[in-house]
Amino acid sequence: MVEREPEPQSGEDLLIARYFRPLATHPGALGLLDDAATITPPPGSDVVLKADAIVGGVHFFADDPPDTIAKKALRVNLSDLAAKGASPAGFLLSLALPQALGADWLEGFARGLGEDAKAYRCPLLGGDTDRTPGAVTISIAAFGILPCGTMVRRRGARPGDLVVVTGTIGDAALGLLLRRDPDTAIRWQLDHRQRDHLIERYLLPQPRNVIAEALRQHASAAMDVSDGLVGDLGKLCVASAMAADIEVARVPLSGAARKALAGDPSLIETVLTGGDDYEVVATVPAEGRDALMAAAKAAGVALTEIGMVRTDRPGVNFLDRAGKPLLFKKPSFSHF
Amino acid sequence: MVEREPEPQSGEDLLIARYFRPLATHPGALGLLDDAATITPPPGSDVVLKADAIVGGVHFFADDPPDTIAKKALRVNLSDLAAKGASPAGFLLSLALPQALGADWLEGFARGLGEDAKAYRCPLLGGDTDRTPGAVTISIAAFGILPCGTMVRRRGARPGDLVVVTGTIGDAALGLLLRRDPDTAIRWQLDHRQRDHLIERYLLPQPRNVIAEALRQHASAAMDVSDGLVGDLGKLCVASAMAADIEVARVPLSGAARKALAGDPSLIETVLTGGDDYEVVATVPAEGRDALMAAAKAAGVALTEIGMVRTDRPGVNFLDRAGKPLLFKKPSFSHF
Repeated sequence: MVEREPEPQSGEDLLIARYFRPLATHPGALGLLDDAATITPPPGSDVVLKADAIVGGVHFFADDPPDTIAKKALRVNLSDLAAKGASPAGFLLSLALPQALGADWLEGFARGLGEDAKAYRCPLLGGDTDRTPGAVTISIAAFGILPCGTMVRRRGARPGDLVVVTGTIGDAALGLLLRRDPDTAIRWQLDHRQRDHLIERYLLPQPRNVIAEALRQHASAAMDVSDGLVGDLGKLCVASAMAADIEVARVPLSGAARKALAGDPSLIETVLTGGDDYEVVATVPAEGRDALMAAAKAAGVALTEIGMVRTDRPGVNFLDRAGKPLLFKKPSFSHF
Repeated sequence: MVEREPEPQSGEDLLIARYFRPLATHPGALGLLDDAATITPPPGSDVVLKADAIVGGVHFFADDPPDTIAKKALRVNLSDLAAKGASPAGFLLSLALPQALGADWLEGFARGLGEDAKAYRCPLLGGDTDRTPGAVTISIAAFGILPCGTMVRRRGARPGDLVVVTGTIGDAALGLLLRRDPDTAIRWQLDHRQRDHLIERYLLPQPRNVIAEALRQHASAAMDVSDGLVGDLGKLCVASAMAADIEVARVPLSGAARKALAGDPSLIETVLTGGDDYEVVATVPAEGRDALMAAAKAAGVALTEIGMVRTDRPGVNFLDRAGKPLLFKKPSFSHF
């Protein structure tokens, strides 16, 4: 024991005060100065709960820019809220930091996180920071609000419903291959713009929260496509006890993905099963199709009809132009 | 592409199905078969949100039993809900697993988690599992429910309020020293029972959820003691813009801690600042004291009066028997 006053703040407190308190503008965050945060759901609401972590060396590269790492960590959760039809209400952050990461990294991380919290109206409510002897690990739990009992489920698809998907599929999986081996861009004969587009789609998901309300109004079932369209649509169909036929030629692809596929048609498996899309696949009854399409268009989100829910044969069939089902080595991304 | 049917389940799905689905009995967990979970707060409720992660090699030893690791991960969060006066509503789990951990570890982890989810009525609602190249990292976000606006805050202490603390202080910090160096037990002249008690208190916090309701009714301020009584009570006083005098001789200690202190009086700093207590420190107006004490007694939780909130001198003063303030080298545990 030495003769000095107890310090009011530890290093952890100072780190939180410097980088994260400026983001905690929601009144329920209590300025990150209490043990816990609160939200007050409007009467008649359900709270939608989602947790997803990203780990350095697994979900992102250690030298990715820290602002995009932060954004990816939040967006992979926002994407689930979008698919479920929920409005973002806020998130908690658990950040495990290796010693090697310095002030620059944290400054960039907090900046990116703050930009997205604002852009998606999903405020930081609380969390914790820890040291780790391992890789930087960013665990986010995100909360959404919607009227009681209206969450869009994986189950709910009915025979004759149309299958729709947002954005484009496969870009991130191709972007990951490009990130791992820069020579791939030459083999695929991509120009710089095409290469950058695919890499950017791996770095930064574009969650479709602007159509959450429309999905809640019109979709019979939906889910976030994070582990590949084939496997994820398969899960939706299993949950709905339905099957589906998908026309591969109708699956929306970016120009860059089409260019890569033209050079190497076998990449279709990567495109359809590689994962990291963070798009929404949904089913919609025929009578709701036009309204959902119009809402997506008004929100600036591409929404493409790719097939139909059926019951007359089992499973999800990805059909080529001749109507023959493609078969995949590994339909879904899995860590295990 | 090879000629076989798409598999319905990935390794990750199988892992979740085998170890975690049996725990997901709450209807809002949707059997862990959807993108997200839901809870429906009763009308007029706030949802209390807390996230805290524990990391192998930082918050626990890699060879600690996996069931106690799981329990610690949940309990450090439950302890915050207790201090805030909230009833547990459920939790999300993000689990990052090194390759080396096998089925035995996961089986023990899930068993421990399930036991505590049941014991504390805090069901598993969802989450995710990932691979990590680093240490096992267990991030839990826990949710509590209480009537709107009634969360017990760190701020709220008033002059003349009594300072009370649950259980005993310092055991876990001493237990950590024993866990690091087994010879310490000999130096402190502890018998096996005393040594085991302190180590057990490090391994397994005892969150005080059974008095959450009483705290909500009677406490003017409260917080969970996780980073040491000195630093944490200091935070409560700063948040309340108050000071406090604490009589060190009244701070409740276990028999084992008293024995260690008798051999080495300098351990008082470890006891009061070491952290990992997961007890509750609260302030209570004089008129609520007896009711709070009676409620704690009825719930089987030791609650000890250790001092008083004041305004006539600054800061939190831990006073020895002569009324002289102790000064601490490092009042609060911090990772940074």
